[in-house]
Amino acid sequence: MNVAASARRSIQPPPVAKSPFPYHPGSLLSVEDLSLEELSHLLERARVLEDMDPLERAKILAKRRVALLFYESSTRTRTSFELAAKGLGADTTLVSSLSSSIEKGESLKDTGLTLRALGAETIILRNSSSGSPWLLEAHTRLPILNAGDGMHQHPTQALLDLRTMLAHLAPGATQITDQTLAGITVTIVGDILHSRVARSNMLLLPRLGARVILCGPRELLPELAVTAGPGISVERDFDIALKQSQVVMMLRIQAERLAGLQIDLEEYKSRYQFDSYRQKNLAPQALLLHPGPIIRGLELTAEVADGAQSLILEQVRHGVAIRMAVVERALTAAREGGRA
Amino acid sequence: MNVAASARRSIQPPPVAKSPFPYHPGSLLSVEDLSLEELSHLLERARVLEDMDPLERAKILAKRRVALLFYESSTRTRTSFELAAKGLGADTTLVSSLSSSIEKGESLKDTGLTLRALGAETIILRNSSSGSPWLLEAHTRLPILNAGDGMHQHPTQALLDLRTMLAHLAPGATQITDQTLAGITVTIVGDILHSRVARSNMLLLPRLGARVILCGPRELLPELAVTAGPGISVERDFDIALKQSQVVMMLRIQAERLAGLQIDLEEYKSRYQFDSYRQKNLAPQALLLHPGPIIRGLELTAEVADGAQSLILEQVRHGVAIRMAVVERALTAAREGGRA
Amino acid sequence: MNVAASARRSIQPPPVAKSPFPYHPGSLLSVEDLSLEELSHLLERARVLEDMDPLERAKILAKRRVALLFYESSTRTRTSFELAAKGLGADTTLVSSLSSSIEKGESLKDTGLTLRALGAETIILRNSSSGSPWLLEAHTRLPILNAGDGMHQHPTQALLDLRTMLAHLAPGATQITDQTLAGITVTIVGDILHSRVARSNMLLLPRLGARVILCGPRELLPELAVTAGPGISVERDFDIALKQSQVVMMLRIQAERLAGLQIDLEEYKSRYQFDSYRQKNLAPQALLLHPGPIIRGLELTAEVADGAQSLILEQVRHGVAIRMAVVERALTAAREGGRA
Repeated sequence: MNVAASARRSIQPPPVAKSPFPYHPGSLLSVEDLSLEELSHLLERARVLEDMDPLERAKILAKRRVALLFYESSTRTRTSFELAAKGLGADTTLVSSLSSSIEKGESLKDTGLTLRALGAETIILRNSSSGSPWLLEAHTRLPILNAGDGMHQHPTQALLDLRTMLAHLAPGATQITDQTLAGITVTIVGDILHSRVARSNMLLLPRLGARVILCGPRELLPELAVTAGPGISVERDFDIALKQSQVVMMLRIQAERLAGLQIDLEEYKSRYQFDSYRQKNLAPQALLLHPGPIIRGLELTAEVADGAQSLILEQVRHGVAIRMAVVERALTAAREGGRA
Repeated sequence: MNVAASARRSIQPPPVAKSPFPYHPGSLLSVEDLSLEELSHLLERARVLEDMDPLERAKILAKRRVALLFYESSTRTRTSFELAAKGLGADTTLVSSLSSSIEKGESLKDTGLTLRALGAETIILRNSSSGSPWLLEAHTRLPILNAGDGMHQHPTQALLDLRTMLAHLAPGATQITDQTLAGITVTIVGDILHSRVARSNMLLLPRLGARVILCGPRELLPELAVTAGPGISVERDFDIALKQSQVVMMLRIQAERLAGLQIDLEEYKSRYQFDSYRQKNLAPQALLLHPGPIIRGLELTAEVADGAQSLILEQVRHGVAIRMAVVERALTAAREGGRA
Repeated sequence: MNVAASARRSIQPPPVAKSPFPYHPGSLLSVEDLSLEELSHLLERARVLEDMDPLERAKILAKRRVALLFYESSTRTRTSFELAAKGLGADTTLVSSLSSSIEKGESLKDTGLTLRALGAETIILRNSSSGSPWLLEAHTRLPILNAGDGMHQHPTQALLDLRTMLAHLAPGATQITDQTLAGITVTIVGDILHSRVARSNMLLLPRLGARVILCGPRELLPELAVTAGPGISVERDFDIALKQSQVVMMLRIQAERLAGLQIDLEEYKSRYQFDSYRQKNLAPQALLLHPGPIIRGLELTAEVADGAQSLILEQVRHGVAIRMAVVERALTAAREGGRA
């Protein structure tokens, strides 16, 4: 992952990835697919697209076809991708499990091939099965954008989290290197075990030099996680982790997933809820991130969620810009002679 | 409510409302928010927008972002707002309770803030809780358009009802005054208690000089209603009310809301159904309005619904024009320096 | 049906149908509505529209209004029509039974009249009741496009099936005659009884000179079918039918419809599943069609579905082109003075 040297070059269309996956240079399946150079390029395009006149921007992908294939309910990710694609001028079509042939037992493969035959030039997929975007790409050879696959990956979330951090911690940076986040400690708190957001961040942040602390009880953060990778450590005591953090990323506690686990919510809150007392005394300067939707009074208090350090809504805003860059990349790479 | 004098002035961009709500001059939470001058202005814009060339019209809000947030099912209101916004060139995104984070327990506040962060410039809200649009505006400071809140208000319905009446009763009127509907009696019939349509009309029509008669059994129209406001009275006998009416507004009888009430449907129909016999003998010239969806054979017969006096479909057509004017107002007021 | 002579003329806007239905010359309720000359015209427009520059194409129906009214779940038909309409520049609005007044018991008639009043210039209808598109047209007088009505008709499916066959069997044909498919045998296999796809193909293919063999067990293909029409015969033995076929059209076996029938799935598969053994030995050159969604391992094996003879995805692609032509026809006929 030593790409610092090449990353210092000026921004150029990035080279095609060499791994067997993604087949398609426009795909974004995992943050691991992206070299730091590609990452720099995406962030720069996000900036350009965000600042562009809306009418000019709508010419970039005018009348191109983007399919959203959502097997799980979603507000922000679906809406964010949809507005991003429409903002670039594309026609979008939404296929959700609520009103489609998915109900009739059609396989992901066949639904994907059908969408390609309908003219979709990229498919944005959310699915509860880990690895499903890889399967979809293997079958369709289209650029696939992973909008969350089971407990596995959520790459655009990690990118928007990164853009949010950089806006505050390295506002002038135009080239991402393996030192860009050197000296920064990011604590991720909560249900690490089931979180695709945590996993994508764990794969991305250490590559930029950040230290990542995982924090939570054993039921939600198994011992095994200590071997998660370079730059990643486990700290069970939230207070100790907080003292070292420049960034605190709270995860949603999904009550439906806790069913069956032996976790007492009141005890959980006393140990891991991010509240004003903890914030003031342990990490008054730390930036607060959360992928949403938040549950006020559970993983964090309303006061903290709405406080000056909270970047939760800024994340959402960054998400639209990042997704414009990602959708543009998907369809531009496709047109310039991908393997599709 | 004596605004007749100022309303006689020529059409100008109306002054900003002075009450604490709406915070945003582009919001439409209640018909009470609108001065008669603003009302004249909206009706004039509806006329202009309806007659405009569709390609020219699509430039007005080209690529602006409009969110529809619907917690209740809806065909006509949702579709009407959606086609109105698209007709002005805006990108729309629909968030409904069927396939969104709303299911995950996210609060209205957080959903609204998320939509704002996603770039929504106005939110069109339908929600089963009375007052929710005020809450949403207080938190987002965006222009909010109330598309129906519980049993409380449905302001665009009252506006389209008004536009429909004026087309027949005062076709040349360009300025709305407190005498515009002088001499007109509007009878509203049925489930007044649960009707946001009734409530919005009761707040609007007397300001234009109309007399409003509320008609229905005690279970659906409590005695308390006699104190509803100036120009409003109660008449239990439908036949007596009909004889005095230039306009009859029938409300949908929602069987689900009658569950639990001691109302016999056959007796209800004999007393309050609008049928051909009543129409011919008591109010042959009266205009018939209904907010839809109608249930033929319940609150009115098919013959009356499809008859020459029925303006039910004309109301729907007026709704698109009114909503274009309302959406334009929301985004124009925002751009010209609202408090958002 | 002897229209061969006139069909040899050059392509001209086809004359208006003379039957009481459709009222509107832009409607497509049944394949029977189309003369062979109109059919030639539609196929030619599909070709032109498919090859057109997307930005030019988007001007054809720019800002026209198209409503999709779907009472049954659907992926490919709904998405295909939606992308077709958007591709021509129209604004679309989707009303589905999942989130609309349909739930409140509103009749098809009133929903259709409401959509017309909202400005819809055509309605694309899928409904579980046979004949519903005729009802909708009778009430709205709009051009109605039948996207599947119960077990009755699915005309655009038959048109896309035809386009797919012609691309392989008569690639140069520009005029459709009653001899275009002379010498071609099309076997339709499976649940004929419940299939609107089978019914529309049975009404169309013999008019072009094709022979149609219906194949399936008595429970799914009653004896009565032998009198289905000229050019149509029944063959219970799949193997015998296969040997004579240039085209094999497999139908989906809808498990939900078999409930109650005395059909053993394993026996069904041994008699009627299209597998590699049958394909290689009995019909190696036959084209394979399937309306989708397919169920791999039931009506056909994955190997056959993905094999060289399979045109299943090509059908989907042809569907978008056909539907662009059909939507264009609906709105062009309307504008040029239909009876609406």
